[in-house]
Amino acid sequence: MFLILVMLMNIVVIGGGAAGASAAVRAKRVNPNANVVLIEATDMVTHGPCGIPYFIEGIVKDKNNLVTYTPEYLEKNRGVKVLVNTRAVDIDVDKKVIVVEKKGSQLETIKFDKLVIATGAKPIIIGGTDRENVIALRHPAEVDKVKIVIDQAKKVAVIGGSYLGIEMAEALTAIGKRVILFEKEPQLMPKSLDPDIAKVIEDEMVSKGIELHLSEPVVELVGNKKVEKIVTTKSEYTVDAVVLAIGVKPNTDLARKAGVKLGVEDAIAVNEYMETSIEGIYAAGDAVEKFHKLLKKKVWIPLATSANKEGQVAGANAAGGRVLKFGGIVGTAVTKFYDLYIARTGLSEREARENNVKYRSTTIKVRTKAHYYPGSAEVVVKMIVDDNDVIVGFQAVGKDIAVACYADIAAVTIDRRMSIEDLFFADLGYMPATAPVWHPLIVAARVLSRGKF
Amino acid sequence: MFLILVMLMNIVVIGGGAAGASAAVRAKRVNPNANVVLIEATDMVTHGPCGIPYFIEGIVKDKNNLVTYTPEYLEKNRGVKVLVNTRAVDIDVDKKVIVVEKKGSQLETIKFDKLVIATGAKPIIIGGTDRENVIALRHPAEVDKVKIVIDQAKKVAVIGGSYLGIEMAEALTAIGKRVILFEKEPQLMPKSLDPDIAKVIEDEMVSKGIELHLSEPVVELVGNKKVEKIVTTKSEYTVDAVVLAIGVKPNTDLARKAGVKLGVEDAIAVNEYMETSIEGIYAAGDAVEKFHKLLKKKVWIPLATSANKEGQVAGANAAGGRVLKFGGIVGTAVTKFYDLYIARTGLSEREARENNVKYRSTTIKVRTKAHYYPGSAEVVVKMIVDDNDVIVGFQAVGKDIAVACYADIAAVTIDRRMSIEDLFFADLGYMPATAPVWHPLIVAARVLSRGKF
Repeated sequence: MFLILVMLMNIVVIGGGAAGASAAVRAKRVNPNANVVLIEATDMVTHGPCGIPYFIEGIVKDKNNLVTYTPEYLEKNRGVKVLVNTRAVDIDVDKKVIVVEKKGSQLETIKFDKLVIATGAKPIIIGGTDRENVIALRHPAEVDKVKIVIDQAKKVAVIGGSYLGIEMAEALTAIGKRVILFEKEPQLMPKSLDPDIAKVIEDEMVSKGIELHLSEPVVELVGNKKVEKIVTTKSEYTVDAVVLAIGVKPNTDLARKAGVKLGVEDAIAVNEYMETSIEGIYAAGDAVEKFHKLLKKKVWIPLATSANKEGQVAGANAAGGRVLKFGGIVGTAVTKFYDLYIARTGLSEREARENNVKYRSTTIKVRTKAHYYPGSAEVVVKMIVDDNDVIVGFQAVGKDIAVACYADIAAVTIDRRMSIEDLFFADLGYMPATAPVWHPLIVAARVLSRGKF
Repeated sequence: MFLILVMLMNIVVIGGGAAGASAAVRAKRVNPNANVVLIEATDMVTHGPCGIPYFIEGIVKDKNNLVTYTPEYLEKNRGVKVLVNTRAVDIDVDKKVIVVEKKGSQLETIKFDKLVIATGAKPIIIGGTDRENVIALRHPAEVDKVKIVIDQAKKVAVIGGSYLGIEMAEALTAIGKRVILFEKEPQLMPKSLDPDIAKVIEDEMVSKGIELHLSEPVVELVGNKKVEKIVTTKSEYTVDAVVLAIGVKPNTDLARKAGVKLGVEDAIAVNEYMETSIEGIYAAGDAVEKFHKLLKKKVWIPLATSANKEGQVAGANAAGGRVLKFGGIVGTAVTKFYDLYIARTGLSEREARENNVKYRSTTIKVRTKAHYYPGSAEVVVKMIVDDNDVIVGFQAVGKDIAVACYADIAAVTIDRRMSIEDLFFADLGYMPATAPVWHPLIVAARVLSRGKF
């Protein structure tokens, strides 16, 4: 009897991005007898927005390369049934049925025993963004349309100076566009970086010919079918196209309609098992809130890395009960502008202040290899500690991919609540071509030790 | 009265390498009133052997660049009195006096209240190595002599296939020498790497034209003033010069003569305060044994990184009492052969077996960036866990400097006794140009989870 029930189990996953695909594959792995169905509104699965700027830039030639697997691969090699071009429009929690709309077809229903909601995030839009030369990037399936708009433009406005805005500024200048970037706050990446670190990126952007407008909120997009002019609090600017990069918000209308409880910033509330407020319904990825291990509270920071892990956990638990837990994040994120790498983890000074964390910090310049070894860069490294000398934040920027590595090391030290003394004595490697003998992280820890070591 | 005693304190450091210079600078910083004297047998301080191969290769043009500071700098900017060309020949423990021999002068005595011994390591030599075309690299002060020998040679034998041997093989082939390398064990880097990882280096060496002889101990160096022929257990080979890279041993004759207790491999026995068996005498650097945090026992692994930290601890404690502790090492080490980077930390399988650690491992190939982003490399990553799924070892090799970064992350996970599940859920960063969305370390952890995640 038990066996038969197991065999009949329907696990349905809504959303074929990082979290959803991870969940579906994992569920099938944990319970090979389950019928696992992945529902995706477009014709691409295992997609993510991270590669889009590099497709625009021409570094990635084929948009199909932006996905990890095709629907056919998932079906054939992972045993997951994939329904593409299928949009979930309703969830009937009592009947355990979801209603889907296939492109050009009537509504259908799909029965589930367990459901994973992985509907992701959607771009925040402002008035006037329905015009045809306004681009709100989120899904690789849209990139062909985007390319056409950009090809026809000479001068492109980028609205928003965080991750996507910076990456798109690179992509657009690299293909010869004039770029004008508007950020409403007085610095780039205000939620991620402190002003001293952001300044390095701002200077680099200007040196690459980008017209940078900080502290300048966009008030209106003017034009008929196309936006022709951008009006800000300070002036107006004629443009040929607009890239909207002011951020994203959780795509949780479907969950809300179903009565699933929402949490921080209207992301789906989940516990560490990725269970929602409704039994049998899990959620993962950009649609859900995340537990911040340092702040010990829920936050909403949508990133592919946590989406993947949350998908794993949701899928495993949907299929097998509480087998995995997602402990949370510490806020690691990486980007780059051309060869200027930018990485951060933990709390910024601003986050520390907002959360009443007593802190002190140091920002230093360090070289990435032995002083006599060629090819090293001088990079800027910032470390933040609380009043117990425990490391709570790290930021780095510079023309060496090493800064991304430093953030990874810092992320683990933060995850493990290491002090600057713990880090100083950690056994980080050295050889002239890979690091200075005093590793940049160790130097930062030393500076913060106030003469102790 | 107390103040006067402090002012009169003599802190003497023997050895101007990484550990000694760190100790001297640190002692002066902790006790600015102390009279800190640094004794160095050559005319260079803050020297290390790590850069020598890159001087030979021509990457570093000036041997004076191989040091961090000049004696003059240390005197002027750090307040340390530096006696160059001065060799310590005896320590009178009871009288608290050391006897030194200045080049071309008579013996002199120097009074100490606290002493730090940082006499480093010396190359292991075999019979016949006194011949004039045999090079045993250890000190930048010797490199001019070395360059002359190498300039005159066409075919150079490298005896020993560990760090120095591999780095010298690169340097010599890069300047057009024919290189024949002998390693007595059946693999390169037998103390550091497992055979599967070493194989990658061996293949690369052969592809660069190096004649590689594994499992072939050198029996005799034949020749009169110069070595002309190398005799091994298998055959004989004519050569023009010989680089001896079979390893180093602690340079502890002076300490032994003074009655300081020696430990593992005749390295100076020290506690975590870097105190030796004799009160007031400290030791640091390659001359001392190290505590292995995983094995919970003393080992001897001489590396610049730990030397520097031990010097810090010895200097601080000599000047200020027990103010700092050195907790030990986990065995991180990095090298490279051309663009093939090699990094390891923790235990190898061999070390695990020798120390009765139950383990299992995985060796996988991973890419270093998103699959669609150009410039990524396929590298080989090996992770070793104990029977509690705690990570105890890591090795990586590949044509991407990222492998050095992976070892640093692994070193921290090992230092903090993290499990593969801890690592899997660690918040490592991602963007297409810096890492795959499933970080290589996370993939390795997953493979070892036997289907758990």
